[in-house]
Amino acid sequence: MPEPVDILLTHAHLFTMQGEGVGYVSDGAVAIRGDSIAAVGSSDVLVNNWSAKETIDASGHVLLPGLIDAHMHTAWAIARGVAQDISQWMQLGLAPFARHLLPAMALAGTRLNILEALRAGTTTMGDYATPYEGWADIFEEYGVRAVLTPTINALPRSGMAGLRIGELYPFDEAEGDRSIQAAVAFAREWHNAAAGRITVMYGPQGADMLDRAQLLHVKRLASADGLRIHMHVAQGDREIDQMLKRYGKRTPDYLEQIGYLDEQLLAVHLTEASEEEAAMIAHSGASMVLCSGSIGIIDGIVPPAHHFRASGGLVALGSDQAAGNNCNNIFNEMKLTALFNKIKHRDPTVMPAWEVLRMATIEGARAIGLGDTVGSLEIGKQADLILVDLRSPQLTPVLNRPIRNIVPNLVYAASGQEVALVMVAGRILLRAGCVLTVDEELVRAQAQEAAEELSAAVARDPIHHQLALMDAMDRGWL
Amino acid sequence: MPEPVDILLTHAHLFTMQGEGVGYVSDGAVAIRGDSIAAVGSSDVLVNNWSAKETIDASGHVLLPGLIDAHMHTAWAIARGVAQDISQWMQLGLAPFARHLLPAMALAGTRLNILEALRAGTTTMGDYATPYEGWADIFEEYGVRAVLTPTINALPRSGMAGLRIGELYPFDEAEGDRSIQAAVAFAREWHNAAAGRITVMYGPQGADMLDRAQLLHVKRLASADGLRIHMHVAQGDREIDQMLKRYGKRTPDYLEQIGYLDEQLLAVHLTEASEEEAAMIAHSGASMVLCSGSIGIIDGIVPPAHHFRASGGLVALGSDQAAGNNCNNIFNEMKLTALFNKIKHRDPTVMPAWEVLRMATIEGARAIGLGDTVGSLEIGKQADLILVDLRSPQLTPVLNRPIRNIVPNLVYAASGQEVALVMVAGRILLRAGCVLTVDEELVRAQAQEAAEELSAAVARDPIHHQLALMDAMDRGWL
Repeated sequence: MPEPVDILLTHAHLFTMQGEGVGYVSDGAVAIRGDSIAAVGSSDVLVNNWSAKETIDASGHVLLPGLIDAHMHTAWAIARGVAQDISQWMQLGLAPFARHLLPAMALAGTRLNILEALRAGTTTMGDYATPYEGWADIFEEYGVRAVLTPTINALPRSGMAGLRIGELYPFDEAEGDRSIQAAVAFAREWHNAAAGRITVMYGPQGADMLDRAQLLHVKRLASADGLRIHMHVAQGDREIDQMLKRYGKRTPDYLEQIGYLDEQLLAVHLTEASEEEAAMIAHSGASMVLCSGSIGIIDGIVPPAHHFRASGGLVALGSDQAAGNNCNNIFNEMKLTALFNKIKHRDPTVMPAWEVLRMATIEGARAIGLGDTVGSLEIGKQADLILVDLRSPQLTPVLNRPIRNIVPNLVYAASGQEVALVMVAGRILLRAGCVLTVDEELVRAQAQEAAEELSAAVARDPIHHQLALMDAMDRGWL
Repeated sequence: MPEPVDILLTHAHLFTMQGEGVGYVSDGAVAIRGDSIAAVGSSDVLVNNWSAKETIDASGHVLLPGLIDAHMHTAWAIARGVAQDISQWMQLGLAPFARHLLPAMALAGTRLNILEALRAGTTTMGDYATPYEGWADIFEEYGVRAVLTPTINALPRSGMAGLRIGELYPFDEAEGDRSIQAAVAFAREWHNAAAGRITVMYGPQGADMLDRAQLLHVKRLASADGLRIHMHVAQGDREIDQMLKRYGKRTPDYLEQIGYLDEQLLAVHLTEASEEEAAMIAHSGASMVLCSGSIGIIDGIVPPAHHFRASGGLVALGSDQAAGNNCNNIFNEMKLTALFNKIKHRDPTVMPAWEVLRMATIEGARAIGLGDTVGSLEIGKQADLILVDLRSPQLTPVLNRPIRNIVPNLVYAASGQEVALVMVAGRILLRAGCVLTVDEELVRAQAQEAAEELSAAVARDPIHHQLALMDAMDRGWL
């Protein structure tokens, strides 16, 4: 007598990501009951054992855990593509836009960015932002899984406009306290909200942006509340310069000294970390987020993720923000991660396709503390999964032996636009190319309108003459 | 009184690629009569001056010259994705498939590959192959522009299976003569065929694959026939090793010595060329094809294209082959080229978006000798152009001032699947997501069938145990 389930996906090229590899099952199936996975296996077994309200024939498709993007700044989709190909990205590219970004614009950017990521198969989104009205709600409305980190720093709210490059940032202790308290309140409201789909981390913005006492305060709060710490670490030469001037130590040594390096830490970027520093952080049990596209475009650097993994650390992928990286797409990050690391090490065997696929799924889930919840297709885990249509020309042919070519093609040939279905917690959010939970046309129209307002405000502000790209505009290059 | 034209494209974000930049015209239009461009300019002017049989409203789209892929091996789409993440790609990845590739399989691969490239906006395809039945015809049937290069080498037809790694290849002079004569006959039949859409180059496979006398014979033929020479140059350490053993010189010095370095030469790859060698080749007037994705995956190397350009050389982009690069998509090559070179030089200002867009259009056209025909939208040039839909989430928002973000987003956020219309020589080949000149479903089905035959033949041949990826198969990584 077959047992009842809600949805049965059948006849897929199934990659469970169980075990040490990719867990391939030819003609595979997954049964979903409520928000969870009830069964995983071969289609003939599942069709016999389970009776589904709806059966979806996934022939010609890959069935994969939903992808995990561990580090985003979704609001910045509102300024996609305004600051590439320049030095001093933050100061000469982003800052003039940042000073005119209103909460409604940030929200329009977040709406757009979730849409983009969802269409490319991202089901878990790790967003980092100074909270604005509606920020967390919009993830709930879309139905995606989110790990939200409200910004904590002690930088003066008045900004740092008068500061010379290389001058120490002033710390405003009251502002630090305020952002810590706001983060605690946010966590109380949103951690494990939306039936558990939303969780929260504490996010000191960087070791250079608040003092030791406040960093340690955050650490104690995180321990008490059982939350992870999501922090930019060694993210640029600017940060390292501040740390050396203030403490005489580079960031990794400083964090080690104050007791910040342990399993609680999710260290983002490590752009400026040496291989030895990466190994030290990995050995501590901390995890890393690698943002290949963003750091490639902004800095021309490949962070030491290969050494981090070789030292036993877990690495998740992140797309960062579209004002720098231009797109928030984990297919893009998988490909760039594999290729950048081959080039860095001048070795085509470094970071093979299956490793970056694990970083985008089960390894990424473990890195952000959701390894028991998502990242692989296993009985009892949340039903977060995607179908990828293999019938696109760029994914044809599909071969199984002597070499199965599906994983290399997912990483090196797919763009994410082949994603045909997205499910989070048992609910179908995208099907047949359409997002079901929002009005896509409205999201795009509102984003366009808000972006034009932002651009107009920047254009009215004489500061825009400082934008590094004004020269390219003048020369007719853009 | 408006003059008659066939097609008028209006209200586009027009990038003519005229001049030194990208030639942007807001609310731009292009008028097409027959196979050529009759007018380019602002929509209001063109709408008043020209009366079109068909007017296409290109609002919300970019209008751009068709993209140029200067180096492909289209047949190899039939083995997409079977040889990534390994060392010795040629011997331990491709060779077992190469020995079982039948002409019908090659043709099915070519059909698939043209489909993929066309859908991603490539209008000029530079294919390199040992001719097989139907090879040139299929480009004519699709209606795309092609630059075809039949292989010339003096390697024994019996293959080089018994050869130890590092042993000098034997030269078979008769085979060299045969391939030269076949190339001459092919050029007589196909150069300037299909109303000029098909042109031919002579293709010595590499300086290590035929002797000096035959290389010079090809050079004389190319001069006499007014054809270019399309040759792999310094494409791997294997080639450099052969050249040093046989002649005591690396490839660039040898080519310089025998008089091969001049405007006639299109030098592909330069994987192993030093920056000095790249500069020497560029100074000679020769052009380069840069295959970023392919060389990144196969070798983990970024060729010295930045120095080649800095030395005054023209660089075209190439996607090489899908058995190594997995996809044949110039959007992919633009992005990887910009990013790889930033990383190689640890400088985010290297190879900005507008430069790689020029490499994919006007600079690429000049590099392959078609600079007077295609590559920019100018009166009298062939009407090879594409529309890119900017309404995709990953290309939203569209901003014009103070910073126009369209070119950075085309390079860093687009995947090629946003291409909505493709025209070659005034004929629309793709519209509303559908290729009009072939049955896409049939092309994919035939490719799948032929690929399965090829895979089965490899699986039956004990040589497949030598495939480097068999270990990954055994471990469950694929």
